[in-house]
Amino acid sequence: MNLYRPEEECGIFGIYNHREASNLTYLGLYALQHRGQEACGIVSSDGQRLYSHKSMGLVADVFGNPEIFRNVPGDSAIGHVRYSTTGDSVSKNIQPILVNYSRGAIAVAHNGNIVNSQLIRAELEAWGSIFQTTMDTEIIVHLLAASKASSLEERMVEALNRIKGAYCLLFITETRMVAVRDPHGFRPLCLGKLGESYVVASESCALDLIEAEFIREVEPGEMIVIGRGGITSHFPFKKVKPSHCIFEHVYFARPDSYIFGKTVYLVRKELGRQLAREHAVDADIVIPVPDSGVPAAMGYAEESGIRFELGLIRNHYVGRTFIEPAQSIRHFGVKIKLNPVREVLKGKRVVVIDDSIVRGTTSRKIVKMVRQAGASEVHMRISSPPTSYPCYYGIDTPNRKELISSSHTLEEIRRYITADSLGYLSHEGLLTAVGGDKESFCHACFSGDYPIGFPRLGPEPQLDLF
Amino acid sequence: MNLYRPEEECGIFGIYNHREASNLTYLGLYALQHRGQEACGIVSSDGQRLYSHKSMGLVADVFGNPEIFRNVPGDSAIGHVRYSTTGDSVSKNIQPILVNYSRGAIAVAHNGNIVNSQLIRAELEAWGSIFQTTMDTEIIVHLLAASKASSLEERMVEALNRIKGAYCLLFITETRMVAVRDPHGFRPLCLGKLGESYVVASESCALDLIEAEFIREVEPGEMIVIGRGGITSHFPFKKVKPSHCIFEHVYFARPDSYIFGKTVYLVRKELGRQLAREHAVDADIVIPVPDSGVPAAMGYAEESGIRFELGLIRNHYVGRTFIEPAQSIRHFGVKIKLNPVREVLKGKRVVVIDDSIVRGTTSRKIVKMVRQAGASEVHMRISSPPTSYPCYYGIDTPNRKELISSSHTLEEIRRYITADSLGYLSHEGLLTAVGGDKESFCHACFSGDYPIGFPRLGPEPQLDLF
Amino acid sequence: MNLYRPEEECGIFGIYNHREASNLTYLGLYALQHRGQEACGIVSSDGQRLYSHKSMGLVADVFGNPEIFRNVPGDSAIGHVRYSTTGDSVSKNIQPILVNYSRGAIAVAHNGNIVNSQLIRAELEAWGSIFQTTMDTEIIVHLLAASKASSLEERMVEALNRIKGAYCLLFITETRMVAVRDPHGFRPLCLGKLGESYVVASESCALDLIEAEFIREVEPGEMIVIGRGGITSHFPFKKVKPSHCIFEHVYFARPDSYIFGKTVYLVRKELGRQLAREHAVDADIVIPVPDSGVPAAMGYAEESGIRFELGLIRNHYVGRTFIEPAQSIRHFGVKIKLNPVREVLKGKRVVVIDDSIVRGTTSRKIVKMVRQAGASEVHMRISSPPTSYPCYYGIDTPNRKELISSSHTLEEIRRYITADSLGYLSHEGLLTAVGGDKESFCHACFSGDYPIGFPRLGPEPQLDLF
Amino acid sequence: MNLYRPEEECGIFGIYNHREASNLTYLGLYALQHRGQEACGIVSSDGQRLYSHKSMGLVADVFGNPEIFRNVPGDSAIGHVRYSTTGDSVSKNIQPILVNYSRGAIAVAHNGNIVNSQLIRAELEAWGSIFQTTMDTEIIVHLLAASKASSLEERMVEALNRIKGAYCLLFITETRMVAVRDPHGFRPLCLGKLGESYVVASESCALDLIEAEFIREVEPGEMIVIGRGGITSHFPFKKVKPSHCIFEHVYFARPDSYIFGKTVYLVRKELGRQLAREHAVDADIVIPVPDSGVPAAMGYAEESGIRFELGLIRNHYVGRTFIEPAQSIRHFGVKIKLNPVREVLKGKRVVVIDDSIVRGTTSRKIVKMVRQAGASEVHMRISSPPTSYPCYYGIDTPNRKELISSSHTLEEIRRYITADSLGYLSHEGLLTAVGGDKESFCHACFSGDYPIGFPRLGPEPQLDLF
Repeated sequence: MNLYRPEEECGIFGIYNHREASNLTYLGLYALQHRGQEACGIVSSDGQRLYSHKSMGLVADVFGNPEIFRNVPGDSAIGHVRYSTTGDSVSKNIQPILVNYSRGAIAVAHNGNIVNSQLIRAELEAWGSIFQTTMDTEIIVHLLAASKASSLEERMVEALNRIKGAYCLLFITETRMVAVRDPHGFRPLCLGKLGESYVVASESCALDLIEAEFIREVEPGEMIVIGRGGITSHFPFKKVKPSHCIFEHVYFARPDSYIFGKTVYLVRKELGRQLAREHAVDADIVIPVPDSGVPAAMGYAEESGIRFELGLIRNHYVGRTFIEPAQSIRHFGVKIKLNPVREVLKGKRVVVIDDSIVRGTTSRKIVKMVRQAGASEVHMRISSPPTSYPCYYGIDTPNRKELISSSHTLEEIRRYITADSLGYLSHEGLLTAVGGDKESFCHACFSGDYPIGFPRLGPEPQLDLF
Repeated sequence: MNLYRPEEECGIFGIYNHREASNLTYLGLYALQHRGQEACGIVSSDGQRLYSHKSMGLVADVFGNPEIFRNVPGDSAIGHVRYSTTGDSVSKNIQPILVNYSRGAIAVAHNGNIVNSQLIRAELEAWGSIFQTTMDTEIIVHLLAASKASSLEERMVEALNRIKGAYCLLFITETRMVAVRDPHGFRPLCLGKLGESYVVASESCALDLIEAEFIREVEPGEMIVIGRGGITSHFPFKKVKPSHCIFEHVYFARPDSYIFGKTVYLVRKELGRQLAREHAVDADIVIPVPDSGVPAAMGYAEESGIRFELGLIRNHYVGRTFIEPAQSIRHFGVKIKLNPVREVLKGKRVVVIDDSIVRGTTSRKIVKMVRQAGASEVHMRISSPPTSYPCYYGIDTPNRKELISSSHTLEEIRRYITADSLGYLSHEGLLTAVGGDKESFCHACFSGDYPIGFPRLGPEPQLDLF
Repeated sequence: MNLYRPEEECGIFGIYNHREASNLTYLGLYALQHRGQEACGIVSSDGQRLYSHKSMGLVADVFGNPEIFRNVPGDSAIGHVRYSTTGDSVSKNIQPILVNYSRGAIAVAHNGNIVNSQLIRAELEAWGSIFQTTMDTEIIVHLLAASKASSLEERMVEALNRIKGAYCLLFITETRMVAVRDPHGFRPLCLGKLGESYVVASESCALDLIEAEFIREVEPGEMIVIGRGGITSHFPFKKVKPSHCIFEHVYFARPDSYIFGKTVYLVRKELGRQLAREHAVDADIVIPVPDSGVPAAMGYAEESGIRFELGLIRNHYVGRTFIEPAQSIRHFGVKIKLNPVREVLKGKRVVVIDDSIVRGTTSRKIVKMVRQAGASEVHMRISSPPTSYPCYYGIDTPNRKELISSSHTLEEIRRYITADSLGYLSHEGLLTAVGGDKESFCHACFSGDYPIGFPRLGPEPQLDLF
Repeated sequence: MNLYRPEEECGIFGIYNHREASNLTYLGLYALQHRGQEACGIVSSDGQRLYSHKSMGLVADVFGNPEIFRNVPGDSAIGHVRYSTTGDSVSKNIQPILVNYSRGAIAVAHNGNIVNSQLIRAELEAWGSIFQTTMDTEIIVHLLAASKASSLEERMVEALNRIKGAYCLLFITETRMVAVRDPHGFRPLCLGKLGESYVVASESCALDLIEAEFIREVEPGEMIVIGRGGITSHFPFKKVKPSHCIFEHVYFARPDSYIFGKTVYLVRKELGRQLAREHAVDADIVIPVPDSGVPAAMGYAEESGIRFELGLIRNHYVGRTFIEPAQSIRHFGVKIKLNPVREVLKGKRVVVIDDSIVRGTTSRKIVKMVRQAGASEVHMRISSPPTSYPCYYGIDTPNRKELISSSHTLEEIRRYITADSLGYLSHEGLLTAVGGDKESFCHACFSGDYPIGFPRLGPEPQLDLF
């Protein structure tokens, strides 16, 4: 059994001092649903003890019954949405993790991935610790429980100084809420205010929904402690160069969020404009692969002057949960999600804009679908560089072997997806379009340049990496 | 208890002679999910008997477990998705309706609304008939069961000649499938072919998903009978002028569908262009209310030359099923679905495009949201005329009293929604944009000009209408 | 599909004019649970309309959640427990059957079996009636709906005069409750009073539980109508000789019930005494097959002077629902229910008392189990005559072919079950032990002497019978 | 939150080396269902890893679906049934407890109660251990995980030497099964063989069901280790005088089980005979409170010569789960379970035999019920001495304050229960009837003579005891 389990693709939300803490956390998680559709949970505090409700499923399903909120009373709460690969015993792996230890109760919600979790877990188990889950996050509470420091803050700093990797963390105790962002600041985290209440969320769109005021992003390496006495900021870690995840801008974050100092929608439009500059083509229409490709396609259209059209319609009732009939003799694949509009595509030279190519199979189906609908030419344009390296900091990517661009040339990929032409945004173009300090981003998935190394028990992950 | 229950907003799908009949019906319903999210069902035939599975819920939930298909074996199947208002005993009101009568088993799926159902039901009950549901559709099977005609076709014609209203019907028996479209042709219905199998669906997008070839639309007043011996077409009803529902083009159908001789997406773009011609305004950007307003906004932008932007981002995990926390002190309303992009709207003169205004409350919230996000001016443009009259032919509209435009002037509505200006597409402009024979559409919701009258038991609906 | 479906082995309960009508019906059904463990339901009336809740499962499971009672408000209620063989679409076959027809709402609960239901159903369907279930009970409501008589009582008499067979019926309308027992009085039914409320139940044990006073048994051919104005008794049917089901005394009814003028427990002890007189044997101990064989074994022990012991212990957590592990390489059969007590049986000559032998397989296992536990001799004694004929009046018996005594001699059966001796109670002894008028019982299962014939559509049941 | 939670009233079962390990464990638990009806679970091993399935509910419900057994594959398994008082977070408190620690996986099922669990838990938490449950059993696995001994046996001995109390334990690892009975031997545990497989169970009735051969009882202080290499017996604890729970014979064990060297049924009959000798009375009939009072009533009848009758009939569909309707204006209490047979009791002088009186409320209702049914005299006889002290070794008894005999004289109790006379079996008579070495039993519930003291964190339990 592989104990290493990255907490990929999660969203976190917390609110302190609001009589509707759990309700608002529910709404906040709802706004962050795109960061994880598999499971979700809320832990609340009424000042005396902690309460928990969590389950597999979408936020609206797990918390859709108003009776549920009786299970999570109180005026503070933290919540978590997660995506993870299926496997055994997943239901015990839902966050927040809530434990009782000698100092009382504490719960934690985590977005990111701890790269040295296996080493620390082995060490703790050798001393007699028993783990309840297979989540890397659990080592944090064990380190807290084992710490002899007298204050919660000291215990946290002692525990967090042991771990390496990407993490945004929200802790809740009977009386306090603590938000921590790792020194590299891989994942986004922001701070807001709603009346007298403080709010912390992975993305600003969650603040918008509950009409909280955006204050600022939590800074890399910052620990914010919120208690009855107010809010304090600490920087207990050694300062390092930031490594914001550039893939949040390209694909993962919601377009209406403001992260790493920019509005995602505008960044994506600029990616499209830059793509048009780098890979112009003579064509009749520009169409996006909806929904994530829409802003880049608009940018490409504006910059190139080619007309923007919706040539592919998305079925919005599709979630990740659609199950094809098992007995079926065929697979419908991308047709379940997308349908071409024949009258738009017929006889046209079409530029198709997508944000990335992973295995290439989906792009291949899309190109064929567009061509079958009557397009005379299909030109694929990708608003990011080739994804050649897996992410170890919290984005779910396949093994390197499955990434088509890690082992194929541009021409090979073009032939595989059967496009008339193919153009990726350049690495330089990407950093230019994102703007700001180019040095402050992690682009390991494009460049293989990993900001943090991987001390592991076994040899396997290294083989993928180096 | 009100026995009158319009079968509003439904979608139907059927396939004859395919070894994966139920699987494909599941996919077909999935493509028609936008026509009804409350409940769905499939009835199949293996040539010997009929099988049924139906339940409240989305198609992907009700049929998501592949084991389910063991319940609906055979090589023919019909299916139904429905929307209806909540109420008691709804679960028995799910279609298709399956009954056994003296001639064997028959099931029916219905999209539309029978306006004389109350009269016929009262008459049947007086003779001793016992009804299982409160759906108007059930009178059809009772009329069939009571008919003494010797052939199924004759019994159907005898039964259908008794009913008035809007209906697209799909029947299945042990050995046959029958599709009927009412003489006015209110609702869309199309015929396709997949290998040796015939397919019937409310919209062409359902044919696309299963890769069936579109043959043609079923014609108003046509009855198509499909059996082991092949397919036959009948026109057993008195011919009348068609009354296609123009609201299918404005809002209800999927943009990638081809109905009433046009592709919906192109019609909607043309509505936007016409709207720009009729209600030009000096502005910086055009934004849609997503998703239905997108094509019209693109058309408006193209015609006006004003830049198209996404100023409102939709949370795609929102279904009709989102339940706000009951204990909440506020209502979040449209914020649950839409979030403005501040950087796009700040300081801009904004044209907002939507497809209709019903009660006005949503439009009011959207205008305020856009203004609070920094817009200097907000100009609302609606890609259809004022909706002043309720629909009795299969679209769920509120009572006339609740329709803001039935009792308020344009200026009153503008003031209520707090827009700087407001423009509706003209009636003439609508018919021009839709194209073809202007006389062939039902526009009662805009004009009050109802193609079929309402013989009712009670006086109530008349009060609303005249 | 076989439309003929006897409503075998059911229990019914009703209460009129009590503010806790549904609660008390729940308790009444609970006391009648032994009459049917598969499904149960309650229909209540608040004077304005009828309410229903029914489901597969035991009474304590279906109604175990107190919230359920909100679904069945009002001050009158009827309920039903049923056993039936598994099959498709069973959930729609749960009683009471509730329908709306031209005169309002009515529900019915039925214990018994209508032998001419197929003929009547065919006739009704030929006129256009559509049936919702495959239960014979449903024809009653259709006959009611089709009746043109002006009063409810007249409609009922008109309907019931059409049907033949065994039936105890409880009807409820918005304002009345009606109890009917067929002219032969096959099944038991009794009337009680609880304060100002009237109660009707299959067995008196249900009155005991709710502390209602037992008034009298409902008489064969009697129709009791209870309404706001009080209670009236009618005898609308032609008088016939009674045919009380003797098997209720032998096995089916609860020992603490008083039916057909006797307490069941005392009858069963007397059956044991008579058995001892008819089939004495030199032995050390008498043991029952628990639980139903206990009173007869006590009677046998008292009459014979042989010591009564518990040599077989029953696991009381066994219901009819125990499912043996599917993958198992063996079948545990009767061991799941019964375990021998070695120290009691070792070296003893044992008389084993059971109430009947059906297929013989269970008796064979019991004899072997007792012998393996050390018994030196095993003498089987049965407190009823050989069961050679199937029941068509409401007891679930196998086909005649499966009844071992219909095709085997006493000696053949003894050898099959491997007993040292075997004795059945004689037919004469049975009637003597039951006491009273010997002519008033139906003993068709022992004698083949069926009080009512079987007009059927198909030839099959006749083959079994004659 | 009270961390102290006795694992009261449980049953355990294990089997090693059988291809149907989980199926047979299911059957074994089924036979032990009387020892705990609230929850159950199975942990199995396939030699490589452990698998778990557990849930609230009866064994037949939790494991009734044969698909379930796919979750617990392998050729060894242990299982647990439990009763416990309701409370929050009960579902996490279901056994067996399965954990992964540095040496691999281990699961444990426990019957009994550890009296120093609070002290040890506090000590472990101070070192940083995090507990998953509130069960005392969990300290055992933490002690195991913390042990540095090199072999599993040594780690177990080290851990078990820390704990005090009553325990029968079954451990399973990937490759071994270990059974341990505490040095006092409070609870029963026996060893059996089925072909080449070893079986361990709380009571012999579980061996009977699966047709395993009874070998012997596991001895007090014995640890039996079963592995691929065979079976070994160890006595690693200091020898002490045994303290078998005499209440197992009086009430708790199944009558067909053989425990502490005797068959329970025969012991109970002897208790009844001894009771007749000590408390004779002139009467007409002897009746039991079913089911547990039956053998003692038979013994009393035999010894006294008074006729044995069933005067109270038990509804066997009653479990501990029966829920009275919440809105009810009355409580039905014991009437739900028992119904008197009037014709048996009318005018009779009745001896009622029960096994114990706890609070007195049930006895009071039974006496009244018997008298209302017509008995002229009611003499209550109890087949054990007054229960005056709570149990701390694994039987669920109320606080001392609630035990009527701890604060009332015999005459006060007689008056409270409204009996004409009342007689308890004497302490001496109890020990005589049970037979064998009188010194080898724990009779603390009758005598207050507790074999093991109670080191606790808080003062509360001591107050009850001394």
